[in-house]
Amino acid sequence: MTSPPFHAGPRRRVAVLGATGAVGQAFIRRLAAHPWFELGDVAASERSAGRAYGEAARWIGTDEIPRSVADMRVAACDPDAVAADVVFSALDSSVAGEVEARFAAAGKVVLSNARNFRMDDDVPLVIPEVNPGHLALLDAQRARRGWPGAIVTNANCSTIALVLALAPLHDRFRVERLFVATMQAVSGAGYPGVPSLDILGNVVPFIKDEEGKIETESLKMLGRYVDGRIEHADIAISAHTNRVPVEHGHTVCASIGFASRVEPEEVVAALREWQGAEEARDLPSAPERPVEVMDAPDRPQPRRDVDRGGGMTVTVGRVRRDPLLDVKLVAVGHNIVRGAAGASVLNAELMERRGLLGARTR
Amino acid sequence: MTSPPFHAGPRRRVAVLGATGAVGQAFIRRLAAHPWFELGDVAASERSAGRAYGEAARWIGTDEIPRSVADMRVAACDPDAVAADVVFSALDSSVAGEVEARFAAAGKVVLSNARNFRMDDDVPLVIPEVNPGHLALLDAQRARRGWPGAIVTNANCSTIALVLALAPLHDRFRVERLFVATMQAVSGAGYPGVPSLDILGNVVPFIKDEEGKIETESLKMLGRYVDGRIEHADIAISAHTNRVPVEHGHTVCASIGFASRVEPEEVVAALREWQGAEEARDLPSAPERPVEVMDAPDRPQPRRDVDRGGGMTVTVGRVRRDPLLDVKLVAVGHNIVRGAAGASVLNAELMERRGLLGARTR
Amino acid sequence: MTSPPFHAGPRRRVAVLGATGAVGQAFIRRLAAHPWFELGDVAASERSAGRAYGEAARWIGTDEIPRSVADMRVAACDPDAVAADVVFSALDSSVAGEVEARFAAAGKVVLSNARNFRMDDDVPLVIPEVNPGHLALLDAQRARRGWPGAIVTNANCSTIALVLALAPLHDRFRVERLFVATMQAVSGAGYPGVPSLDILGNVVPFIKDEEGKIETESLKMLGRYVDGRIEHADIAISAHTNRVPVEHGHTVCASIGFASRVEPEEVVAALREWQGAEEARDLPSAPERPVEVMDAPDRPQPRRDVDRGGGMTVTVGRVRRDPLLDVKLVAVGHNIVRGAAGASVLNAELMERRGLLGARTR
Amino acid sequence: MTSPPFHAGPRRRVAVLGATGAVGQAFIRRLAAHPWFELGDVAASERSAGRAYGEAARWIGTDEIPRSVADMRVAACDPDAVAADVVFSALDSSVAGEVEARFAAAGKVVLSNARNFRMDDDVPLVIPEVNPGHLALLDAQRARRGWPGAIVTNANCSTIALVLALAPLHDRFRVERLFVATMQAVSGAGYPGVPSLDILGNVVPFIKDEEGKIETESLKMLGRYVDGRIEHADIAISAHTNRVPVEHGHTVCASIGFASRVEPEEVVAALREWQGAEEARDLPSAPERPVEVMDAPDRPQPRRDVDRGGGMTVTVGRVRRDPLLDVKLVAVGHNIVRGAAGASVLNAELMERRGLLGARTR
Repeated sequence: MTSPPFHAGPRRRVAVLGATGAVGQAFIRRLAAHPWFELGDVAASERSAGRAYGEAARWIGTDEIPRSVADMRVAACDPDAVAADVVFSALDSSVAGEVEARFAAAGKVVLSNARNFRMDDDVPLVIPEVNPGHLALLDAQRARRGWPGAIVTNANCSTIALVLALAPLHDRFRVERLFVATMQAVSGAGYPGVPSLDILGNVVPFIKDEEGKIETESLKMLGRYVDGRIEHADIAISAHTNRVPVEHGHTVCASIGFASRVEPEEVVAALREWQGAEEARDLPSAPERPVEVMDAPDRPQPRRDVDRGGGMTVTVGRVRRDPLLDVKLVAVGHNIVRGAAGASVLNAELMERRGLLGARTR
Repeated sequence: MTSPPFHAGPRRRVAVLGATGAVGQAFIRRLAAHPWFELGDVAASERSAGRAYGEAARWIGTDEIPRSVADMRVAACDPDAVAADVVFSALDSSVAGEVEARFAAAGKVVLSNARNFRMDDDVPLVIPEVNPGHLALLDAQRARRGWPGAIVTNANCSTIALVLALAPLHDRFRVERLFVATMQAVSGAGYPGVPSLDILGNVVPFIKDEEGKIETESLKMLGRYVDGRIEHADIAISAHTNRVPVEHGHTVCASIGFASRVEPEEVVAALREWQGAEEARDLPSAPERPVEVMDAPDRPQPRRDVDRGGGMTVTVGRVRRDPLLDVKLVAVGHNIVRGAAGASVLNAELMERRGLLGARTR
Repeated sequence: MTSPPFHAGPRRRVAVLGATGAVGQAFIRRLAAHPWFELGDVAASERSAGRAYGEAARWIGTDEIPRSVADMRVAACDPDAVAADVVFSALDSSVAGEVEARFAAAGKVVLSNARNFRMDDDVPLVIPEVNPGHLALLDAQRARRGWPGAIVTNANCSTIALVLALAPLHDRFRVERLFVATMQAVSGAGYPGVPSLDILGNVVPFIKDEEGKIETESLKMLGRYVDGRIEHADIAISAHTNRVPVEHGHTVCASIGFASRVEPEEVVAALREWQGAEEARDLPSAPERPVEVMDAPDRPQPRRDVDRGGGMTVTVGRVRRDPLLDVKLVAVGHNIVRGAAGASVLNAELMERRGLLGARTR
Repeated sequence: MTSPPFHAGPRRRVAVLGATGAVGQAFIRRLAAHPWFELGDVAASERSAGRAYGEAARWIGTDEIPRSVADMRVAACDPDAVAADVVFSALDSSVAGEVEARFAAAGKVVLSNARNFRMDDDVPLVIPEVNPGHLALLDAQRARRGWPGAIVTNANCSTIALVLALAPLHDRFRVERLFVATMQAVSGAGYPGVPSLDILGNVVPFIKDEEGKIETESLKMLGRYVDGRIEHADIAISAHTNRVPVEHGHTVCASIGFASRVEPEEVVAALREWQGAEEARDLPSAPERPVEVMDAPDRPQPRRDVDRGGGMTVTVGRVRRDPLLDVKLVAVGHNIVRGAAGASVLNAELMERRGLLGARTR
């Protein structure tokens, strides 16, 4: 992560809501040494509020809790208790709707990882390399809701990996039909999440609401901003979602049908050439390449490829002819990094570059 | 397993070729106490020939080697060294072609689990409940090859589970398009098979030649015997095959498109009503129901459902509307039992009932 | 399970407390077709009470909920709500103390799997093959507590496997020193129990309170009943307990020092000859052999040996000289069957045979 | 890895024997960007010789083959085919004895990871932080064998982790008795190594020859160099070794008895103060701390702690009173890094610093 020269001066204070959970911890990890942002507040449920973060959180990573964070006092998820004007939300959807709205109403910019507002017409659902222009929805959002703050969302973890693999192809060839089968890591369900008795040596072919998210969120992100609203992409999608005994990394098998015949070699070339939206490049959390293609016949694999680009790169492979549509491929993305905390932070970086986070006051 | 009354008299002597491997062991297990067949010979590679089976085989099951088999002398895979007239082949495809042909030429009936002859025009590829009529190809086989014996094959492990789930639907509604994504157990690769370093906490989205097998063998088995040949079914199939860290049981996600609109409830009803070909019922290895449908939203799962019907039943669940074709569902089948050894034994039982195994002479 | 001839007449009505959890389900499984007992009541927490068992329990086995049980109404864990006079307790230790005492005070015989009363001086901690005589403590229990009912306990899951392997050796050679390192299955922690994020591809070298249980419960069970109390065995025990990614089956590595020099061959012979207390033989849940010894150099293994004797047999192997004490060995036992539900049921069978369950009134 | 200032000039050319296997790959990874050494030759079996390394090796890591190495031509394991004067051996013990002796006889310094020479009286078995003085054996080695080169070995993977945890305690309190139970990762068996069918959801309580290695190699490394030979430490050790479904990282449970009573707090203090031999500090591969102690009650864990110190730090935890000896603890070390490739490279760095590798000629 290198900080572009235009960003001088003190770092902006930010907060994390839902800071003790699995995604919350991933936010902490990313923000502890961020060049632009400084973690000023950690907030969580009533049960944790008032305790030191190091005691309230059951840290599940392979690293240590950053020293500076371990001693922070956990705040309640209340706008009055959180000084920062920019907040990252790792809240569970059971509470995110109400809490995030309160923060936006109190003037905070909320970067949300929860599903509650994603599909609302006036809420941007953004991947910086794919659809940065959707941030323009914020005007409609302010107009309609009267919030001094704002809510910007990122998609669910499996959808982000899929859309990054599709975006270069949709740009170039127009995707019309899509069959998707996922094999998703247990960390996608948070902590404690999936009981080991359910998943050791097993596959669970069901993840609540997940297929619907893929089938709808993809269309919004691949859609176009026109006159204050998003025209969703017109793709027929069939998704099968499965949980597998993998720690991190969602694997997506996709069969893709285009508007006209496209060969596997063209797909590989399009993926290799694509660099994503120019304004997303060189952001601190942006990987050198958002999508990489491997040639090995048995890759990508989650355990071996999940950390490519610091977890921010989606790895694609096995691009081959599909007997029914046009092309088949496999994509692997890090569900916690590119699919959650990293996605929100990258969105915030894009907004900072665009001046959408307001003046920095510490 | 109950022996129908019509089968009296001594049990028929049978042999297993490739008896020391994972599938070979599954044959031993099934044949050790079979009501119609008696395991008379175990044959394997030169390395094992001459040794006691109990020493030559690295037994990988949770049970013990049947006492009667442990002391058998392993024969070479040579027709002269094998007394039985009916042989089950668990040979690797690298040698199965040549060895099985020699056995057939020597007058033996070969029930093969190898891929070598499966797609030959004059070789039956059979699931008794689905396409018993394909055994009629044996006339063409004898006419063309001049073998006094015969070769009958069963499909590869993932294809059998898929075809059992499809057959009731193809009969009733005609399947035209099919997306399949599999998550296959490590035992499908034999022993030692998949290295643990490749699959612990991982998914390998590649199984050599597997997608092609699904895309072709299915069409043959769902085809019709007409005038001495098989008219393959006309279904466009796209298969994605993956290896997952599961011991036994292949999981298949399928999206199915029919000749005309079919609702999920009709699919469930068709699966529940289907009992398979009448002549396959009550065979010793036939399960009470070849296909069962579960209602629980998160089933079938390989670890929990693989042993249904003694491993001979394919479990189907999650039957739901597909946004792209008509219906989505999930099927789980035991790759070693229904998908390999049990499949061959069931084929032999069907042939015995039809009188296709010749006179019993011991 | 064969019912000895002396037991005629109707089956005795029994109940399960904590019936919805992992161990509770194991009780249901064992009692659904028991020759002597009939499951008449299933009781659980307030949350489940009043619902049909099939809805209240998240059934985690590979089988189906027994039909007769699925429709039972779940009772509260209250003596007035439970008609049976004999109750099996799978309650969590956080509530077991209070609830079990209330049942005993109400005249019920409680067969408890919880730790709360195990180490009390007047409570039998029993393995029928090892120390059936400890049931004599019930006189002291009644005298001291004034309960018309009684509480009889079984040890924790890892201790039972260990003690079954030790008992034949302690009888013969007197064990004086013992090192134990366990590798315990996730099902030992119940359901949902161990989060998959904690144990996939990992070892957790800590199980709360487990080392202390092994170091104390073993001594009580290997002790002798003398004059209304148990003289605990005098063995110095050091236990290391670890959680490993195994579904069922605890593996115990033990180094054993005896009162005088003992050779591995003597240990093997003693284990092979031992059949356990005579009065425990032929009980419905008693395996043909409570302890079996394997010769293979790499056995026992939990996945391959856990179900020996229907899960009631402890498998021992790798008996070899120890450089520090006398002998090393490995034992594997089924933590849910022999280590929990099966243990309690076997205790009840022993009590029934002895006439300690009272008259059968249904 | 920082290069101390004293080491200026060109890097020394080194080679790896057995470069295509799991440990060979770990050597490649460490040497590809080493500040003192330059990988000049990769050698392997006849089967691989002559091919490009990138084709001959099935790379199993999560990273890519270093570009500079992928195109190297694989040499035969012959001194004439290898230009470097310093060679790292990842050879299998079935060939290491003969090949390594030939290299030493040809004037090469061999840093061996194989077991063949480890226990020879005149061969140093070294951990730089623990027993650097044992390198003095090289005089005896040259005198006895007449080799212009030399062989220096490192211990087997589980022993190194154990000895690093013991050394601070043996220095201070003198260890006299030791009970050890290991839970070892599958990567310790190389690639393809452990079949997944053997280890998924299982424990294998047997690793060929491993217990003997722990029981002997430890004593040599903890011994003292006196008058041209090593006086082995006088510790009675009992080892149980087990394979578990973990990718990397051996976990060791140990009970330790000292010459006189030692409290857990003293053990923790001794481990925390210990920094290892002064001359091993600041070597490029030396971690900041060779041993670290964690306070969390459930650590160390292999998946979470294996990479501490870049895989060169052994993590200790759960230091507590032992009922039979003095103290119990748990240690985790990276079997491929600290336990194999990193160990050999660190030995070479120590020798370089001491001037034992000869003049650098490239």
